[in-house]
Amino acid sequence: MTAEGARLVIDLPAWVAEAAVPGRAFRDDQDKMALVIRLAEENIARGDGGPFGAAVFEIGSGKVVAAGVNRVVEAANCVLHAEMIALMFAQQRVGSFTLRSPGRPEHELFTSCEPCAMCLGATLWSGVTRLVIGAEREDAMAVGFEEGPVFAESYAYIAAHGVQTVRGIRRAEAARLLRGYRDSGGPIYNPDSTPPTTGL
Amino acid sequence: MTAEGARLVIDLPAWVAEAAVPGRAFRDDQDKMALVIRLAEENIARGDGGPFGAAVFEIGSGKVVAAGVNRVVEAANCVLHAEMIALMFAQQRVGSFTLRSPGRPEHELFTSCEPCAMCLGATLWSGVTRLVIGAEREDAMAVGFEEGPVFAESYAYIAAHGVQTVRGIRRAEAARLLRGYRDSGGPIYNPDSTPPTTGL
Repeated sequence: MTAEGARLVIDLPAWVAEAAVPGRAFRDDQDKMALVIRLAEENIARGDGGPFGAAVFEIGSGKVVAAGVNRVVEAANCVLHAEMIALMFAQQRVGSFTLRSPGRPEHELFTSCEPCAMCLGATLWSGVTRLVIGAEREDAMAVGFEEGPVFAESYAYIAAHGVQTVRGIRRAEAARLLRGYRDSGGPIYNPDSTPPTTGL
Repeated sequence: MTAEGARLVIDLPAWVAEAAVPGRAFRDDQDKMALVIRLAEENIARGDGGPFGAAVFEIGSGKVVAAGVNRVVEAANCVLHAEMIALMFAQQRVGSFTLRSPGRPEHELFTSCEPCAMCLGATLWSGVTRLVIGAEREDAMAVGFEEGPVFAESYAYIAAHGVQTVRGIRRAEAARLLRGYRDSGGPIYNPDSTPPTTGL
């Protein structure tokens, strides 16, 4: 019996790795958010995916560990939100299923848009201790993206488990990007979207 | 500039693909749940990961599309819950970011244990229209696994978006498996767990 089809490959576009070279240090929240917004912009411009960017940094040094961009439609994989990619590549780099490790630096996730239900769950599992959000859930939903079952209690829950959430960093800029994406006719994909049948 | 480390490979163990050969038909909910519990058991027995199994089926024909087992510790990747693997491989097989497609069969996700917050979000994004659960959240938490921010409203939310949830299929059997895993000293990994440093 063969195990045909039993491998799944997730490629980070080379330009993402180049824009967020692991080990490069960023100064503050504004700079880190500017990076993930730039990743989202570039992702749209290149036609590589949805208007979302994310990155994991080491707290303290400000060094990038890994970055991600949305690849859902292009990779035919609903899991590949920017945050999921950044978290998975960060764990691959660190070599552990958790980014919390005694005696090692803590980590933070920056995302150009508030995490959906899936990404918020993964944020908790990932071991990051800080979550920094650009655009808000309502900014994403205003242009037609679903965000799933996330409630005020969800944030209380992750706070009780050691994840601090910070909002409003470059929100206006991040929200403008989402509106621009919609206005330029970018695909709004949701589970009930008809998959594109051409050009992919 | 190279894009070193910009590929992530997820391998489904060959024995999973063999136990759940895509296209093989299962008769009813009992049989489908028996399969995913067997996957969880085998995963423990082989030391491949945590005590969780899942599979996506075509509704109507009962054919397996893809299966998954937990690989978090072994793959150093907190995303690789059984459900996430089954959903990603199912989408790879179908070739779309959503398993809902006009004129095509609908799909259902069977899981040996209630989905965590991340997996519940992915269930919604995946396009399955039915979620069938063995062990409950409290069965998992009773042995020490975190489940994340999932509330009664979470299920109301996914129901409103077309995902029906069915509970209690072989629950006692699925919960017994979790207790047996804990009693035999299986690792209970959570974000604040110290990663194993040997044998992996």
